[in-house]
Amino acid sequence: MYSNEEKRLTPREWRERFREGEVRPTVGLAEGFVQLHLVVLPQEQAFDFLLYCQRNPLACPLVEMLEPGTFTSQKMAPGANLGTDLPLYRIFEKGVLKGEADNIKDMWNNKMVAFLLGCGLSVDQFLLEVGIPVRHLEEGQFGSIFITNLETAAAGIFRGPIAVSMRPVAGEKVAKAVQITSRFPAFHGEPIYIGDPGFIGIQDLQKPDFGTPLTIKKGETPVFWACGVTAQLSALCGKVDFMITQAPSHMLITDIRSASMAAY
Amino acid sequence: MYSNEEKRLTPREWRERFREGEVRPTVGLAEGFVQLHLVVLPQEQAFDFLLYCQRNPLACPLVEMLEPGTFTSQKMAPGANLGTDLPLYRIFEKGVLKGEADNIKDMWNNKMVAFLLGCGLSVDQFLLEVGIPVRHLEEGQFGSIFITNLETAAAGIFRGPIAVSMRPVAGEKVAKAVQITSRFPAFHGEPIYIGDPGFIGIQDLQKPDFGTPLTIKKGETPVFWACGVTAQLSALCGKVDFMITQAPSHMLITDIRSASMAAY
Repeated sequence: MYSNEEKRLTPREWRERFREGEVRPTVGLAEGFVQLHLVVLPQEQAFDFLLYCQRNPLACPLVEMLEPGTFTSQKMAPGANLGTDLPLYRIFEKGVLKGEADNIKDMWNNKMVAFLLGCGLSVDQFLLEVGIPVRHLEEGQFGSIFITNLETAAAGIFRGPIAVSMRPVAGEKVAKAVQITSRFPAFHGEPIYIGDPGFIGIQDLQKPDFGTPLTIKKGETPVFWACGVTAQLSALCGKVDFMITQAPSHMLITDIRSASMAAY
Repeated sequence: MYSNEEKRLTPREWRERFREGEVRPTVGLAEGFVQLHLVVLPQEQAFDFLLYCQRNPLACPLVEMLEPGTFTSQKMAPGANLGTDLPLYRIFEKGVLKGEADNIKDMWNNKMVAFLLGCGLSVDQFLLEVGIPVRHLEEGQFGSIFITNLETAAAGIFRGPIAVSMRPVAGEKVAKAVQITSRFPAFHGEPIYIGDPGFIGIQDLQKPDFGTPLTIKKGETPVFWACGVTAQLSALCGKVDFMITQAPSHMLITDIRSASMAAY
């Protein structure tokens, strides 16, 4: 997936490459460092979105929020320009995808607010470390994501269903998966549902709403974690005038080590 | 179940009553205090049983072990006489139940060793505190216990299957049930299995091997914790010459508060 030379690149060096125009998924890059979702919204919606994150912490784990009009990260990637330092962006208008761009310098104005949200892929390394295989890594996929019938707590125009990512886990390792992910609330924390998928509105585990299906073996239990797609859905459901996000799998690579985000 | 006067009785006062001959199940008595299983074995088997507990900590959480021939608790119920202070005992010979007695004074000799093991019922109060209903309490039962196809790690003559207790938990509360019970390794800790009962050899959840069946509602996941019955089974499987245990639900009431047994 990447060369030995690339394996040694720091988060800062990757951000420089993206700033200079390189476009590639960030999966597996700068191993051990936190990668984050970006959501940029008009200032008029920023208060409600902040409230929405506060009310739905498992689905929308907000780890950094910038002042209106500011585009330089202070905490997670100090000095990073959020308008240029991610590989690929998506622009939405009135709830509809309008296009992609490798930077959003020209779209940024002093009425816009940037939010950085944690990403569930960051816990994969900890699951592996405690001996829990991660099927989407084994199968070279980004995972299975489903829209459930569970509702988020609304705030302003932001509302909608909870999206979940699913990992199949052997029945005797489910408790361990809960324990290890509980330690990382910034990466969606513990599972929000363990059990019958039909009860949360998932008719067929082989037909995810986003991503790709995963093999589920005998003796494995489907375990569901809240997913960052929830935030994006809430903005689309709310038909927010304007929103920029990173493109799927094209995340912000930060300078913070994932292990340091453990809550205990 | 018991009078207001009885509700105020201390663990020590209950043990006095049992010493004087009262026989009754200890469920619900001296609320908030740890209740324990008693296993008494000949000294020849004590080393192997200790090793067995060490190798199977979730199933056999050993919280106190006395010197051979000693029958006074030091740690969990200081001064309690383990030969008289429990309400009812069971005597096994060569793996077969020989009878029950309200004290074992005459059977005790200086070649016998007493073990005190944690009990899963002690976590019910913590499940309730975090908002997880406990079905066997709701239905006035002691719970459903199953013998699985999971094997313990053997030690000497002690070997056999892991027995589990089952609690039905709403899918969205399973993670919380794992989190709270993880804090209490002395009471069997986190679940050992969450998922398809058939995979661990349980054909019908409505036909427990011990205890009574429990209602399982739509959207609930059967969650399995290792159970103290495992220790008893291992002694019976091993056809140990002689063993004394407390009768089911007739536990040792200790002076230690359950909350103080939290590992973190």
